[in-house]
Amino acid sequence: MSDHESSKASRRGFLKRAGLIAAAAGSGMAAPADALSPPEGAAEPAIEPFYGHRQTGILARQQRHTWFATFDLDTQSRDDLIRLLRNWTDAAAEITQGRPAPVHPNDANAPAESEETLGLAPARLTLTFGFGASLFASNGKDRYGLASQMPQALIELPPFPGDQLIEARTGGDLSVQSSADDPQVAFHAVRHLSQLAYGAARIRWGQAGFLPDAKPNETPRNLLGFKDGTNNPPVTDEAATAKYIFVGEDGPSWMRGGSYVVARRILLALEHWDRMSRDLQEHTIGRHRATGAPLGKSDEFDALDVNAVDRNGNPVTPLHSHVRLANAANNGGARILRRPYSFNDGINYSGTRWPPWRQGMAYDAGLFFVCYQRDPREGFIRIFSKLAEFDLLNQFATHTGGGLFACPGGAAPGEFIGERLFA
Amino acid sequence: MSDHESSKASRRGFLKRAGLIAAAAGSGMAAPADALSPPEGAAEPAIEPFYGHRQTGILARQQRHTWFATFDLDTQSRDDLIRLLRNWTDAAAEITQGRPAPVHPNDANAPAESEETLGLAPARLTLTFGFGASLFASNGKDRYGLASQMPQALIELPPFPGDQLIEARTGGDLSVQSSADDPQVAFHAVRHLSQLAYGAARIRWGQAGFLPDAKPNETPRNLLGFKDGTNNPPVTDEAATAKYIFVGEDGPSWMRGGSYVVARRILLALEHWDRMSRDLQEHTIGRHRATGAPLGKSDEFDALDVNAVDRNGNPVTPLHSHVRLANAANNGGARILRRPYSFNDGINYSGTRWPPWRQGMAYDAGLFFVCYQRDPREGFIRIFSKLAEFDLLNQFATHTGGGLFACPGGAAPGEFIGERLFA
Repeated sequence: MSDHESSKASRRGFLKRAGLIAAAAGSGMAAPADALSPPEGAAEPAIEPFYGHRQTGILARQQRHTWFATFDLDTQSRDDLIRLLRNWTDAAAEITQGRPAPVHPNDANAPAESEETLGLAPARLTLTFGFGASLFASNGKDRYGLASQMPQALIELPPFPGDQLIEARTGGDLSVQSSADDPQVAFHAVRHLSQLAYGAARIRWGQAGFLPDAKPNETPRNLLGFKDGTNNPPVTDEAATAKYIFVGEDGPSWMRGGSYVVARRILLALEHWDRMSRDLQEHTIGRHRATGAPLGKSDEFDALDVNAVDRNGNPVTPLHSHVRLANAANNGGARILRRPYSFNDGINYSGTRWPPWRQGMAYDAGLFFVCYQRDPREGFIRIFSKLAEFDLLNQFATHTGGGLFACPGGAAPGEFIGERLFA
Repeated sequence: MSDHESSKASRRGFLKRAGLIAAAAGSGMAAPADALSPPEGAAEPAIEPFYGHRQTGILARQQRHTWFATFDLDTQSRDDLIRLLRNWTDAAAEITQGRPAPVHPNDANAPAESEETLGLAPARLTLTFGFGASLFASNGKDRYGLASQMPQALIELPPFPGDQLIEARTGGDLSVQSSADDPQVAFHAVRHLSQLAYGAARIRWGQAGFLPDAKPNETPRNLLGFKDGTNNPPVTDEAATAKYIFVGEDGPSWMRGGSYVVARRILLALEHWDRMSRDLQEHTIGRHRATGAPLGKSDEFDALDVNAVDRNGNPVTPLHSHVRLANAANNGGARILRRPYSFNDGINYSGTRWPPWRQGMAYDAGLFFVCYQRDPREGFIRIFSKLAEFDLLNQFATHTGGGLFACPGGAAPGEFIGERLFA
């Protein structure tokens, strides 16, 4: 995964943060000494900055665990919404840095926070906030006087062929991606935000995901057994991130420095996949399983040559293979920053949509696909429109939920996330 | 948690295992050098032994992740069952040590294994196998000629007050607890066993769980925010483990050195819990939340004094508090080895069983309670019969699935797990 190159950038912030942390010593929450000790052998502080021009969870080296949740607003009041975003921002600025935050800042008698992270390090916690289309307008109603500020890019995701979206796992007014190297830290952060939202918003859906403990410079494998994330845009290349990931002069000014996140809960028919030969699996993906190299190549990072043919004149990379259809060269140069996680929600009743059409108890497991991009119309929607029609992988994958959210730029100290939207 | 004392014992096996691993070098699976490097700063090899008098997952220092699955047998054949247990044992002996194992040992043309752990270390993987009552007799039928070998201790768990067991999350003919410091390693191991079971057994239910990254000598907190596992029997004390955890001369001879595992999926009404004051939470548990000390005491490991009263003559530890009811002194000395994990299965429709009787979308999260004991009638059943009636915690906890399984002793090289049952 090319985005661990971001660790260099995050190390530059180390000395600055060390000062902050020293100031927090004795706060009783996460022990600052631990917070600074390198996790799992990496020479990197275990705290990610919160404040900044951009929300820091987008480019941070991908954490081991994520807990992506969306909320629906109960309130009709614009002031309540502003208060919620301010409280969320203030809390996020504390807990990501390993400091305790009050749960009910306006109620001294309310219960304290849940404390399941007492004594734990922040584990590189990042919290990335997003706004759903329904925040701006719902059933034609301008709920909070924001309709005129809605970005054109924040469209409803179109229905894709094969979509099996479950309403209770789709959409939401607000999104929070909580990612950390410790699943309990990621869970707690959303719970804390949820407590702050009492009376104003309720959690709608959530999806936990994990990565394997891959070596620092290795692309992690997903549950298909293949490396996933090889061909991401280089996150340390400012020109590339400006081109593919972050919003510039396009769209409303409050989205400058922001990004659009698409999340998709993809159920994988692992029992069906496991009955395929490795050849067929590699034919489906378009890469070699062991090395991650494009078919016919030997290195993971070798470029895919869509024109290469074998001695019989057939394309080396099958026409309907996943990587061929998703490749930038086949999509007008479109690229997105993929930050996928695997999920394992136990065993559930489900069926395969293709032969052998089995129905029964099966893994409720798969890929929680999360990607960031400058414009979803030129990113996920463009790429997935083609995949949803032609990808050989479709016979093993079913999209069961998710959403699209506009993630505004980051906040400076004293600001709240999305503040410019309300100016 | 007192059971990380077992790390000392596991370190004793280090040199022996190092030899094994050297022999496996170049196998192409997990890199042996990594397998031996200490995980997350601990001075301990990242491999747990497989062969031994006892199944090693029972006393191993609790891993960060678990994936507990049960299987139902499809076959009527005793030989198929024996073949399955042999294949499972042989595979477990390989993959726990970081070596690849064939998925279809009798079919050279079958697909290879799923390989999502290619390049990963074994992460202290342990696989602990158990037999459900239905293996011995189902609807009065002696399915595999084993009915006469069924231990008296392997009774059907009685219905407890408040039980809300979901059938699809309860029981099973065979159980496997797969635990590792890497969730992908734990998932893969059961998937591998499931592939080996094609045609003979199918997965019935599974539950994933995690622990926070607590310091090596700290008891981890569960999602209630309280430390969980403080008062476990000391696992390095052979007399204590023989008394409370492992089967001795009691019961059929094939269970010597074995243990009984009870698993319970406990849904926690976290939204409800979070609205309680800390005082009420501590009153419910009977311990202080921050320190884990019994009420009125200051240290986590201070003994609970069930006779202590305050100046008004009221018991310091409330009569209906969780720790008072579960305490050995109130249960004829009964003790069990608790190895609980937290789980987070997203957001689901559910209700609270107590005021305020809310129904709606709520955390599908809680405690996956796993405990090992010499005899469930004198362990879990005895303790939980009282808890299920009187525990104040019941208003926040609902048992939604689980099971009881007889885990036979461990295997020596060449044997399979449970072999003596078929002698």
